[in-house]
Amino acid sequence: MTDFAKTRALFNLPEGVIYLDGNSLGPLPRGASQRLARVVEEEWGALLIRGWNAAGWMEQPRRVGDRIGRLIGAEPGSVVMGDTLSIKVWQALAAALKLNPTRRVILSDTGNFPSDLYMADGLVKLLGDGHSLRTVPPEAVAEALDETVAVLMLTEVDYRTGRLHDMAALTERAHAVGALTVWDLAHSAGALPVDVAGAGADFAVGCTYKYLNSGPGGPAFIYVAPRHAEAAVPALSGWLGHAAPFAFDLDYRPGRGVERMRVGTPPVLQLAALEAALDVWDEVDMQDLRARSIELSEAFIAGVEAACPDLVLASPRDAAARGSQVSFRHPDGYAIMQALIARGVIGDFRAPDILRFGFTPLYLTPEDVARAVEVLAEVMAHGAWDRPEFHRRAAVT
Amino acid sequence: MTDFAKTRALFNLPEGVIYLDGNSLGPLPRGASQRLARVVEEEWGALLIRGWNAAGWMEQPRRVGDRIGRLIGAEPGSVVMGDTLSIKVWQALAAALKLNPTRRVILSDTGNFPSDLYMADGLVKLLGDGHSLRTVPPEAVAEALDETVAVLMLTEVDYRTGRLHDMAALTERAHAVGALTVWDLAHSAGALPVDVAGAGADFAVGCTYKYLNSGPGGPAFIYVAPRHAEAAVPALSGWLGHAAPFAFDLDYRPGRGVERMRVGTPPVLQLAALEAALDVWDEVDMQDLRARSIELSEAFIAGVEAACPDLVLASPRDAAARGSQVSFRHPDGYAIMQALIARGVIGDFRAPDILRFGFTPLYLTPEDVARAVEVLAEVMAHGAWDRPEFHRRAAVT
Repeated sequence: MTDFAKTRALFNLPEGVIYLDGNSLGPLPRGASQRLARVVEEEWGALLIRGWNAAGWMEQPRRVGDRIGRLIGAEPGSVVMGDTLSIKVWQALAAALKLNPTRRVILSDTGNFPSDLYMADGLVKLLGDGHSLRTVPPEAVAEALDETVAVLMLTEVDYRTGRLHDMAALTERAHAVGALTVWDLAHSAGALPVDVAGAGADFAVGCTYKYLNSGPGGPAFIYVAPRHAEAAVPALSGWLGHAAPFAFDLDYRPGRGVERMRVGTPPVLQLAALEAALDVWDEVDMQDLRARSIELSEAFIAGVEAACPDLVLASPRDAAARGSQVSFRHPDGYAIMQALIARGVIGDFRAPDILRFGFTPLYLTPEDVARAVEVLAEVMAHGAWDRPEFHRRAAVT
Repeated sequence: MTDFAKTRALFNLPEGVIYLDGNSLGPLPRGASQRLARVVEEEWGALLIRGWNAAGWMEQPRRVGDRIGRLIGAEPGSVVMGDTLSIKVWQALAAALKLNPTRRVILSDTGNFPSDLYMADGLVKLLGDGHSLRTVPPEAVAEALDETVAVLMLTEVDYRTGRLHDMAALTERAHAVGALTVWDLAHSAGALPVDVAGAGADFAVGCTYKYLNSGPGGPAFIYVAPRHAEAAVPALSGWLGHAAPFAFDLDYRPGRGVERMRVGTPPVLQLAALEAALDVWDEVDMQDLRARSIELSEAFIAGVEAACPDLVLASPRDAAARGSQVSFRHPDGYAIMQALIARGVIGDFRAPDILRFGFTPLYLTPEDVARAVEVLAEVMAHGAWDRPEFHRRAAVT
């Protein structure tokens, strides 16, 4: 059994705060400060340029990629780190379209994170040539998959409601009509068991600053199924994805496998924080994590529904159909969330009316959840949110 | 007068090392460790998600962009940080091509950094439609500029030889034939006075981990001339370049001015190190820096040529035609550089035969240069490099 008291002790959580926003930005793992200090002083400071070889900076994106790979069911050597999630979405999409050259449609859903849709939109506009992005409601994806679809691009867990797509079933359906898949695991990696290889996913991407706790601006990852790795064309063809970066050839030749999805110089400091954050995961069993996540989420839903009748559940009621977050709707959601935050219970707000709460077993206990319900009930009971000073801009992602 | 003894005291330089590789990776500014520790503990650790507003993370790419802008002669509000240099090259090129839609040729030179050429190659292949990348020798660029050229893409300072292009003259010539310009300032920003506005550059990009000392993987910058800022189409259209990221609209609308060149979540930790590194520049006059850089470089050339007749100068002899580095050729250049590094004089090697030495007045003294010449002379005099244990892979960028 995973020892969640032990994992909780590995985080630096501020006194008096119950943090239900790890689905947006994970908290500071205690090991991250020391790791960063070591990389800065002993590697950058002392080794200088020699750090690229002597401290392993150059291989870091692939080495860390394998650690992420374990958490998402990827084959060894099929994941590499770098850039931001939006860039990785673009790379995966561009490569997938090239692998399915007779078709022109990217299919996605209206529940996808907007940046994914923006990047896809930018790509189809750049390509011209009849390419288009088609979005349908999340529940209509399966039936919208037809022989025109080149790529199905979905985020497994909806960033607002936590609704969970069936990755294996939709991938199978996509393949049946000759489409490839790009799965965004932003709200999945570290949130629930993921099995990209078992599901037959073609490409997957994700960020690390949410459930994986790598800190603000932590690097993204990209997974390319080994069957595509030597055929996938990297449209963002940077020198660190080259077969021989240090030959400084004038012509581009893609590197081996997923290495070709590297672009420029890796963010060594952000990767150091990520590595420290991944240490926490070493003794975590993903099935245990899922069971605990459901226990916490179910307790929260039951408590809120009992105590706050004005809040309407926006997430699927069936735990099996949710990721690791729970959302409620209220017309004054923004102000309510500000009042909650002022009382030390940190979730976030998403327009127009969504209050989001993330459940992260690594550092949240049933007692935290019970206390969060109490505080939310107090806020709702007293209309305490309805004050103008709360009307500031909401927090991020 | 800039006080270079004072700036030197702001760096953490290892004992016994003479660092002539700041053109590849700058050393650790003393302030960076503290700044990072503060951002990690007091911002990420204590503020958690609230750091995006309360600690100013969201505005950081633009705020830091203005600090870089001062060093490259950019108008306030015309520079923004993010991603890697390769990504920024791609964004600038894609936007420039769209601004010159009746033409199809990107002109560059064979002295350009390969990643810039790779990214351009990937872009023209993706676009199809008759686009092409044409490269000519550096000295043939001016005459190769004709009415077919959509975009002239050059790196101002050659990464191998230090040869300096005349940015103002080539930009004027490009404009005269109706072409736009994309200038890569990787080896210029912090190395010599740059005046993108005065030169009339259309786009400029650069990295920060070389002469600007932001640490391994520090973020890149992009400059868009204000006259293009509202017309430039961001092909990598991510949510943080959106006019209203937190509206979470399904459709992309580009943000104001250079803000649209933002893509995904900014690398807050790398940006913190960069901010500390930029503090060093607050009292540096770029003309003083240039004078001192030339003094150091000239002394090095004179010393090496007197003491090491087998080394052939690969850089322009005229200081006005060089950036802030000096290169020599030797068939055993790789092994010679390893022998030098083993003796505490750190430069680097670039295939096939280039020994590179960067001259960075912020932390290098004339005494350092004299000592480096002595050590190089010892290595050359004794053939001390010719030992198999030196034949390992060279360091980066």
